[in-house]
This record gives sequence, structure tokens and C-alpha cells, in this order.
Amino acid sequence: MSEATERAPRPRGRRSGGGAADDIVAAAAAEFAERGYAAASVRGIARRAGVDPALVRYYFDGGKAQLFAVAVGRRDVDPAALLAGVLAGGPDDVGRRLVEGVLRTWDAPGGRERFRMVMAATASGHDHLVRDFLASEVLGRLRGVLPEADADLRVALVASQLAGVLVARYVLEVEPIASVPVERLIDTVGPAVQRYLTGDL
Amino acid sequence: MSEATERAPRPRGRRSGGGAADDIVAAAAAEFAERGYAAASVRGIARRAGVDPALVRYYFDGGKAQLFAVAVGRRDVDPAALLAGVLAGGPDDVGRRLVEGVLRTWDAPGGRERFRMVMAATASGHDHLVRDFLASEVLGRLRGVLPEADADLRVALVASQLAGVLVARYVLEVEPIASVPVERLIDTVGPAVQRYLTGDL
Repeated sequence: MSEATERAPRPRGRRSGGGAADDIVAAAAAEFAERGYAAASVRGIARRAGVDPALVRYYFDGGKAQLFAVAVGRRDVDPAALLAGVLAGGPDDVGRRLVEGVLRTWDAPGGRERFRMVMAATASGHDHLVRDFLASEVLGRLRGVLPEADADLRVALVASQLAGVLVARYVLEVEPIASVPVERLIDTVGPAVQRYLTGDL
Repeated sequence: MSEATERAPRPRGRRSGGGAADDIVAAAAAEFAERGYAAASVRGIARRAGVDPALVRYYFDGGKAQLFAVAVGRRDVDPAALLAGVLAGGPDDVGRRLVEGVLRTWDAPGGRERFRMVMAATASGHDHLVRDFLASEVLGRLRGVLPEADADLRVALVASQLAGVLVARYVLEVEPIASVPVERLIDTVGPAVQRYLTGDL
């Protein structure tokens, strides 16, 4: 455990850290499976791993959300940072950027297998876990930038379209969605997502 | 087996038929699970059930597609008939009618549970079955009414949006999609589906 290594440039929010980090990931997976996303806590995960909560935050500075992403298999994805980048560019092209951010995340090596893991968890009684994660980390953040009265419906519709594309591309492998370049999906699905976010409903 | 009963009014494509029909349904479930949708046949299902293929077609005149719908749990749904009704009204409002047809089918009593069964089958290695069924019975029929070069992508995008809404409504239960009236989803999702079918991509 080399805790004294470089603190400055950490583009992906997670330090390399051998055994302790792996113990924390295993503890997180157990905590989420047993307690669900809402009830799980960094403190509880630290307790399971037999480490101080500060050490958990040292390795995973994206907190609970990053730990869930990690437990599902993506050690380098911080959903808050991803969404902040998507939202930073303003409202006009946010639909395209959101589709792009989501697809580039899951198109990365191993992404297909990880998405299928999420699907299997969803279909086998852990749907509450995925729902709670979605609600607090993705939908809640998106909703925060929408002033309209229909904000809840808008973000839910966005989630439905993105979930559908991910299922079509990685699970059902519906052609040509399964093999088309990301750019084509950005061009076709982006405007639909944009309408859900800022258009007339 | 009262084969001499009324032949005229059969609004839902399936005759009532006691034990033999139930044997056929059980045989269909086994045939689909073992051979997949593409390789399964009415003849093979009849052989498993120990009946003549003509008897299978007598009870299930929607053929293989209806038998899959039946095996998944909807004994009264014939996807070909449903889609024919949706397409009969012409291209202008087909997006709304398609959303309505799909949602009314799965909103029927027991639909949520049946959709979760399909999801569980998809996530547990039977995705090819669902994919083949979708391709030949739903996407293929939709594609047939689209003249454009992008027809394959269009119907795949429609399938992705509809699948996403069904997952959000019945599996992830994302609010307000989970509890909003069907009419609200027709109004909001219908135009997105319409754009995928006939709009600029």
C-alpha cells in the first residue's frame, strides 16, 4: 500500500492500491447485495473490509456511487464526473453528449460483459439496487439541470431510451444497433434524448 | 377435445381446448428452450406433444409466433395480428399506435410478471430466443412497410425505445414511467418512435 504516491493528477478518480483496494471492492459488492444501494454506506463497507472509512475514500474518492460502479466492474468510471462533463457543455447539445458519454463508457473493453451483469442482477431480484443507483446518481443529477415541471418524466424517458439502446447493443444484439459505430447512434438517438430533455412533450 | 365446436367468431386467434392445448403449450416451451426460436417448428412441437401438426394449427392458428407468445404466458396475443392492426392505419400516426399497442398488451393483468419472465430469459442465456422472435415476427414485419434504405436501423431504434420503456415501466419501475397512464406515454414516446420510423435520421 503506497499511500504516499502522487496526489495531483488523478484523471479517473481511483488510485492504484493492491490488496486493500481489492478487499474494499469485495466488501462493497457484499454490502450492496445485502443492503441495497440506498442503505449501503461507505462506513459499512469500510467495516466489512476491516479498514478505516478514510482509506475507502482515499482509494475511491467518488464515494458510494463509484463503489457501485466498481462493484459492477468498472473501476475507472465515476458517474458523477461523467455526468458533470456531459452537462458542462450547456443544454443545446446535451442529448448527443449524453448518448456519447454513455456509449463510450460501455463500449470500452469488457463493457458488454459488465452491462450483461447489470442486466442479470436486475432480472434476478436486484432491480431495486439498479433503480436506486439510477435514481440518486444519474436521474437526480440530470433532473437538477431541468427547470420544467415535467423534469421527472423527462429524465425517466431519457433513461428508458438509453437503457433500450444498451439492451439492444449489448444484450439482444439487435442489428444494426449492435455493430454500428457509436457516431451513428449519437446522430440518431441524440435528438430523441434532446427532445425528452428540452423539447415539447 | 371438442373439435366440432364453433369455428366462426375467434377474435383472439386461439380456441379453448383443455388438455391437448395445454400439452401443446408445454411442448412449445420445451421446444423453444431447447432449440431456440429459429430452429423450433410447429411440426417439432406437435411431435413432442404427441399430436398431429394440424391439431397444433387448429388451436394456435398464429403458428410459431403465437406459440412463443403463449409459452411466454400470453395465450391471447398474436403479434402478427397486433402489428397488422397498428400498421393498417397508415404511416402518419403509426408511432403512437405502436406505443399504444405494445403498452396495452403488457399493461393487461399479469403483463408485468410476464415481461419480467422475458427479461429473466434474456439475461440468463436465452437472449437468442428473444432476438430471433423479435427479428422475424416484429422487426421484419415493421421493416416491410418502410421503403427507406435505413429500414433496418429504423426498426432497431424503435425496438430499443420500446424495450427501454417496458424495462422502465415493468422491471426497473422508474417513476413516473412506472405509474403514469398509458396515454401520457403514447403522447411522449409516440413522436420519438414516429421519428425513428419516418423522420430524418
